[in-house]
Amino acid sequence: MQIRAQDVAAFLGGSVVGDADTLLSGIAGLNEAKTGDLSFLANPKYGPMLATTQASAVLVAEAREGIRPAQIVVANPDLAFAKLVTAFGPKPIHPAVGVHPTAVIGERVQLGANVRIGPQVVIGDDAVIGDDTVLYPQVVIGAQAQVGADCVLYAHASVRERCRLGSRVILQPGAVIGSDGFGYALQDGKHTKIPQVGIAVVEDDVEIGANTTIDRARFGKTRIGAGTKIDNLVQIAHNVETGSHCIIVAQVGIAGSTRLGNYVTLGGQAGITGHITIGDQASVTAQSGVSKSIPPKAIMRGSPAQEFKAFQAQEVHLRRLGTTQQTVKSLEQRVAELEALVKKLTEKAG
Amino acid sequence: MQIRAQDVAAFLGGSVVGDADTLLSGIAGLNEAKTGDLSFLANPKYGPMLATTQASAVLVAEAREGIRPAQIVVANPDLAFAKLVTAFGPKPIHPAVGVHPTAVIGERVQLGANVRIGPQVVIGDDAVIGDDTVLYPQVVIGAQAQVGADCVLYAHASVRERCRLGSRVILQPGAVIGSDGFGYALQDGKHTKIPQVGIAVVEDDVEIGANTTIDRARFGKTRIGAGTKIDNLVQIAHNVETGSHCIIVAQVGIAGSTRLGNYVTLGGQAGITGHITIGDQASVTAQSGVSKSIPPKAIMRGSPAQEFKAFQAQEVHLRRLGTTQQTVKSLEQRVAELEALVKKLTEKAG
Amino acid sequence: MQIRAQDVAAFLGGSVVGDADTLLSGIAGLNEAKTGDLSFLANPKYGPMLATTQASAVLVAEAREGIRPAQIVVANPDLAFAKLVTAFGPKPIHPAVGVHPTAVIGERVQLGANVRIGPQVVIGDDAVIGDDTVLYPQVVIGAQAQVGADCVLYAHASVRERCRLGSRVILQPGAVIGSDGFGYALQDGKHTKIPQVGIAVVEDDVEIGANTTIDRARFGKTRIGAGTKIDNLVQIAHNVETGSHCIIVAQVGIAGSTRLGNYVTLGGQAGITGHITIGDQASVTAQSGVSKSIPPKAIMRGSPAQEFKAFQAQEVHLRRLGTTQQTVKSLEQRVAELEALVKKLTEKAG
Repeated sequence: MQIRAQDVAAFLGGSVVGDADTLLSGIAGLNEAKTGDLSFLANPKYGPMLATTQASAVLVAEAREGIRPAQIVVANPDLAFAKLVTAFGPKPIHPAVGVHPTAVIGERVQLGANVRIGPQVVIGDDAVIGDDTVLYPQVVIGAQAQVGADCVLYAHASVRERCRLGSRVILQPGAVIGSDGFGYALQDGKHTKIPQVGIAVVEDDVEIGANTTIDRARFGKTRIGAGTKIDNLVQIAHNVETGSHCIIVAQVGIAGSTRLGNYVTLGGQAGITGHITIGDQASVTAQSGVSKSIPPKAIMRGSPAQEFKAFQAQEVHLRRLGTTQQTVKSLEQRVAELEALVKKLTEKAG
Repeated sequence: MQIRAQDVAAFLGGSVVGDADTLLSGIAGLNEAKTGDLSFLANPKYGPMLATTQASAVLVAEAREGIRPAQIVVANPDLAFAKLVTAFGPKPIHPAVGVHPTAVIGERVQLGANVRIGPQVVIGDDAVIGDDTVLYPQVVIGAQAQVGADCVLYAHASVRERCRLGSRVILQPGAVIGSDGFGYALQDGKHTKIPQVGIAVVEDDVEIGANTTIDRARFGKTRIGAGTKIDNLVQIAHNVETGSHCIIVAQVGIAGSTRLGNYVTLGGQAGITGHITIGDQASVTAQSGVSKSIPPKAIMRGSPAQEFKAFQAQEVHLRRLGTTQQTVKSLEQRVAELEALVKKLTEKAG
Repeated sequence: MQIRAQDVAAFLGGSVVGDADTLLSGIAGLNEAKTGDLSFLANPKYGPMLATTQASAVLVAEAREGIRPAQIVVANPDLAFAKLVTAFGPKPIHPAVGVHPTAVIGERVQLGANVRIGPQVVIGDDAVIGDDTVLYPQVVIGAQAQVGADCVLYAHASVRERCRLGSRVILQPGAVIGSDGFGYALQDGKHTKIPQVGIAVVEDDVEIGANTTIDRARFGKTRIGAGTKIDNLVQIAHNVETGSHCIIVAQVGIAGSTRLGNYVTLGGQAGITGHITIGDQASVTAQSGVSKSIPPKAIMRGSPAQEFKAFQAQEVHLRRLGTTQQTVKSLEQRVAELEALVKKLTEKAG
């Protein structure tokens, strides 16, 4: 299929700078694009590639002078691209509507309209699956668990007994919802398991990454707030609560009972200790270790984490440390020499 | 169901301070509790909440004056809570006793009495499953593997061929026992796989977290000692051996052939290099990186890890570093001035 | 079965120092070996164990004097051991040739010769599986996905739609290929999902560890280069490309669009930021955090990562920091005393 640049612009509510009749038939990154491809510039870091790309047109936030491809100017190239791909890109290949004959559906299960239950899915007794929800092969839903409408759960995702997912939730392959929290009491030299009888609740519009694990609460609930997005291999411990619209990047770990506000961002591999509070819109950079509560909008870095500016200052001090130590060594010598001289002068002066 | 505080105390072997007839019908955290709920104080950090909680009674280690809820005084509130929840909390909803018709059981498999083999479990040839063991849907047990008595393996847990689990072992969803160790020999510029023909052995009373991976040995065995508890997303490499009753928190990684003593504690996201020894009762704090053997009872922190006190001292020194560098700068100037003055004096003194 | 040391040597193309008729019947580590066992020394760290091992013979790179066991001298003991184990060790216990009756095979699927499709495998429509490939129980292959020849995919590994695996690829249990990349655009205060319509491509001779996750590209492809070996619980984000023959140790995370050259080594738990380049043969030590592109052959350490030598120098400076601060304090006092003395002398000298 070929589309003219001006038709793409019209579809996106943008405008064309350059040849509005440019014909487009594919989508690619700036580096990989060939003639006929539409590409886009979201990260300004790649700006210089606009001069070298083979793409026939590019989505940009601001038109530039002196570049060859046609430019389709839109408010948010990322979003525009998403809209375009949803309309023209490859469509998902979901399991068929209905229940595959190899699926095992428990007793008193409620299935919504138009559900797509793939091969070898297992749904426990008394579970509820909302309208239009898609369960890929070998998803396991525990007894009395609830999954909302319009969710997509990929292969090997599992939701343990009594846990609840809202609507439009996505679980990538292997995500685990409702595993037992890690809690033991020492008794006679043995770690005795503390029953984890709470649940995990995942609110509307949450996405959870591949092989990420969300523990159920000791009692009460672990809660992932609406619109929060969690990447792969993240660990969320029992009784954690996140606010809405948080971004939690891959391999982050959050220990038990910690609370995140809204719009919190945690960088990859960051670790957050238990029983603390992370304020609204706070950010923690990658690999940082947070051991104390942090206020709203704070930006934390390092392990143990400090305010970003303090961390940066410390880094500068550290880089200078070798020089400082040389200076101190030379000062010691100079002071010793001065002491000798002054002693001599003092003796002379009597 | 309603129970009087004094009946709860009697059940737990504790005593009531306050109204022994208080009626209790639920369990909740101090913060979430409502009238009629029993709550508990295990972490002293939450002590002030005793004054504000809506709970009707609380489990405590020591009675306090001037608080409203009835207090049930017990030696260990954590344990008491566990006992209570086991007796009165929601019961597990295991698969039914017997073998689900969709399970695939290999040849010569030995199944113990009262096993619960859920839908679509796969058990390889010559495997052994002990009495009362529960396999949730889509657990896979490899050929010749052995699982002891009274184990619970949740959805998508897998045990590869020839590996062995003791009794009362719990595998959370997606846990992997016996994946190949990571070993290659460089040959003609290619990494040639070194066969990993050993096994993994998980001893009695071990719990292993969701999506945690325990590699099989290159030869011989990887061993998880009795009573050791491992959290989610932990990586245990080939030929590692842990002692008994260790606590290994989420996202820890232990490289090949390292040995842990008994009662070792590894904090979340800690990394332990290969071929070293961690002494009995040693602790490693979260995110630390241990690259050398450490003696019994050592407490290590940082990456690279140091003795806890040395780490703390270094942190103090670091916080002062900016000030030190300013002092050095001013000392340089003062010494230069002194040198000029002394030179002048020396000349004068002739 | 018993084999003479000289027959082992002949099989390996090595030579015997000591009793060539020594009878061998087993294989074990130096520490665990008993009479009749063959052991080996690959890591020189364990050299002293040659004097204490109970093994009857050892594979070594260089013969030593004065040790009891027979020595079989080979160029590369690691490789020799691998060859031996492949020939004489326990054989893999793969699913039978053919398609297990409980497997669900989609429409228009192409199955190669001698495939082994285990119980409850699910293969989506239009997928292709190469000759001699082995799919363990409950592997899920998405629609239109391609798996090459002679691959082994263990239990619960999954390959999402349209992704491609080369030949001789190994996926350990629970590995996920082609999960959605983590990409959102903020719109009206909500994180809107950016469709991830690209694929993941895993080239020939790659091995991927248990529960490791490889995201599909936003568009185009995420690519794991030929011969690269990836350990357990690693996260590879969308549009990452690795070169050939890289070694990526457990729990590493690589953020989006980063490119690795050939023969790159990433130590355990290292984190690599997005949109950077890691040069050929560069190494990153365990737990390091790389936030800028690094040149070929660089060795990086620390978080934020520095050149290895700079990191080491900084560590030395840090260890001395306490002493430096004491010196500075004493210098301050000495300078103050000097200033007082010089002032007095200056006044006297008039």
